[in-house]
Amino acid sequence: MFAVCCEAHTTKVSRNANIAKLQAGYLFPEIARRRSAHMLKYPEAQVISLGIGDTTEPIPEVITSGMAKKAHALSTLEGYSGYGAEQGEKQLRAAIALTYYGDLSIEESDIFVSDGAKSDISRLQVMFGSNVTMAVQDPSYPAYVDSSVILGQTGQFQKDVEKYRNIEYMKCNPENGFFPDLSTVSRTDIIFFCSPNNPTGNAATREQLTRLVQFAKDNGSILVYDSAYAMYISDDSPRSIFEIPGAKEVAIEVSSFSKYAGFTGVRLGWTVVPKELRYSDGFPVAKDFNRIVCTTFNGASNISQAGGMACLSPEGLEAMHKVVGFYKENTNRIMETFTSLGFSVYGGQNAPYVWVRFPGQSSWDVFSEILEKTHVVTTPGSGFGPAGDGFIRVSAFGHRGNVLEACKRFKQLWQ
Amino acid sequence: MFAVCCEAHTTKVSRNANIAKLQAGYLFPEIARRRSAHMLKYPEAQVISLGIGDTTEPIPEVITSGMAKKAHALSTLEGYSGYGAEQGEKQLRAAIALTYYGDLSIEESDIFVSDGAKSDISRLQVMFGSNVTMAVQDPSYPAYVDSSVILGQTGQFQKDVEKYRNIEYMKCNPENGFFPDLSTVSRTDIIFFCSPNNPTGNAATREQLTRLVQFAKDNGSILVYDSAYAMYISDDSPRSIFEIPGAKEVAIEVSSFSKYAGFTGVRLGWTVVPKELRYSDGFPVAKDFNRIVCTTFNGASNISQAGGMACLSPEGLEAMHKVVGFYKENTNRIMETFTSLGFSVYGGQNAPYVWVRFPGQSSWDVFSEILEKTHVVTTPGSGFGPAGDGFIRVSAFGHRGNVLEACKRFKQLWQ
Repeated sequence: MFAVCCEAHTTKVSRNANIAKLQAGYLFPEIARRRSAHMLKYPEAQVISLGIGDTTEPIPEVITSGMAKKAHALSTLEGYSGYGAEQGEKQLRAAIALTYYGDLSIEESDIFVSDGAKSDISRLQVMFGSNVTMAVQDPSYPAYVDSSVILGQTGQFQKDVEKYRNIEYMKCNPENGFFPDLSTVSRTDIIFFCSPNNPTGNAATREQLTRLVQFAKDNGSILVYDSAYAMYISDDSPRSIFEIPGAKEVAIEVSSFSKYAGFTGVRLGWTVVPKELRYSDGFPVAKDFNRIVCTTFNGASNISQAGGMACLSPEGLEAMHKVVGFYKENTNRIMETFTSLGFSVYGGQNAPYVWVRFPGQSSWDVFSEILEKTHVVTTPGSGFGPAGDGFIRVSAFGHRGNVLEACKRFKQLWQ
Repeated sequence: MFAVCCEAHTTKVSRNANIAKLQAGYLFPEIARRRSAHMLKYPEAQVISLGIGDTTEPIPEVITSGMAKKAHALSTLEGYSGYGAEQGEKQLRAAIALTYYGDLSIEESDIFVSDGAKSDISRLQVMFGSNVTMAVQDPSYPAYVDSSVILGQTGQFQKDVEKYRNIEYMKCNPENGFFPDLSTVSRTDIIFFCSPNNPTGNAATREQLTRLVQFAKDNGSILVYDSAYAMYISDDSPRSIFEIPGAKEVAIEVSSFSKYAGFTGVRLGWTVVPKELRYSDGFPVAKDFNRIVCTTFNGASNISQAGGMACLSPEGLEAMHKVVGFYKENTNRIMETFTSLGFSVYGGQNAPYVWVRFPGQSSWDVFSEILEKTHVVTTPGSGFGPAGDGFIRVSAFGHRGNVLEACKRFKQLWQ
């Protein structure tokens, strides 16, 4: 007998084949990686990030005070609280229902408070399981597709078309006004739809959303509607899918404080699952989501929830509108710049994202060229889906000085 | 043609059959429901909860100050931060590695900071997917089994034996010293093991854990080791599975600040996935966990993470030890009470849980009798698995006055 010295032990557990299907890195860590590499190459450069969509402005004091107060209270006998309800504090659920769904008969008990939309998307996917089919806008926020792959709802990635098998990609481009031609979309169980859209910045109109709800109804589909940018809407596009009659029987809405109050690091969001939404056997979807939330989650931080309460006070709401207004002004500067340079520019009006067309060019090439020549980080459109190729997403989240400096560099590059 | 008026629309999406397998409610919400019903029935009663295991003592001021300071900083230009790394702040990961794994060659990059152990258990299950088999201690914390059911790793619940098909239940009872007889345990891909154990309060010895690691190694299994109560250990039982030689090639460790600093509502935990742990094809498990964390999570709240940093300062560590000491004193009182009443009492020495035997009785009956006659909420042992029947878990999380009052009532009931 010879003992085999020093050979590494390997378990006999098979790697989850669904995770192996995922392509390269999740988009934003990949961009962060390239940004770091660029900074190593140009240690002197003043790199400006208009890439990941991360808020940069301080949280209004009225909101941070609410959180600091809660933190202090936790060190007192009267103010201490341990586990809260997994679904969130009653008071906060009620305030969200009243503030954002006051006229829409959404009740406190329909609201599930969370640590953010990304986590809730994944919890929804865990709830749906691996036997559902799904559709996404193309382009779209990568977490929809990636979580679907992880749960095993898809087939392999097909390199030639840059799509996963078994996902219905609903093309959204300037030619169709960024709203899919539903007559060509196959029926799926789940439809992810984000409006105002990340990345295109486009908000669907009432008429379009009415068609979408009817489409879901006709197909017996569940619509997962991501409204994380609703406060950025400046025209009369619906702020919530539940403004559309009948939506409660077909839709779930996911939303977040991240882009309203600068809560990207504080972590607070919510999901609305109306009691009227039912599986084919009549079972209420909300009951299963409640079970998922109670089993796989322990509620958002009580300090973040105190922040949410402060956000929804009259002063908090006013402060959030100012934050949103600041980023909207950034958006205007970016739109003006690209428009003046002769580009075809989309989005911006109802969202903090500007979607710029570079006809016939690869998004990653444009991303690299912009980074190399201006030290500005953007996001390549193809990172959001194949129909995003030939576009760049420019985020309006940045200090004013940085945004103006980036615009100046864009002008130097292309003028 | 007759239009059917007012009939409720139902989608054509099939309910996830795995969720339908789950039995009744998740344990703790079910106990909360019964507690509420009891309070309706006896509105005058002073109900004392030694049930859910929820911390009751204020968070030490040195820790809440750290969080309040961070909250205030977020309202300043210099102190603001948006999205952090999904894996947690570098500084906090380093401090966890140093504080809890200083001698064990666990590196900062092996630590994934999270919003708590329950969320991480679910993320681990999503990573493993539906094709793995799993073992749990019987009794055990319900989230292991329930998340396994949700992911589709199990068969149906068998009412006659109170077990799910396809889960290996490793019986832990006084007869085997609360450590499973591994010679009778079938090989599974994943082994969940909690020590100090929730609910039995028993900590495995170094010798037992050495056998467990060897068992996992021989079987090519992955051990998911839950050490959320490690700071409660008062003898020389290992505080971490990584104290056992070779564990890094077979184990993941999940832990939490909840029971050390009263963070049940603040939400902060961590998971250690060593680089040495590999799937059967040699692929590092940590790489997949990193991908799961980046895709389905956006990091723990930055304010909670500031709290974690404060916890790991010299003053914070001292303060946490006091909190733990306070609950340990509660535990002693509860143990003394039941021992003096002639019960067989287990746990307590290394955990804030006391496990009391009621031979031949149903746990839910005992739970109901105690609640009815003393207005004290406990937890029925059978809620943690069939081998927990005939036991009651009494949690030591409570104000001293309440614990003493509960002990008094127990004495009145049984003396």
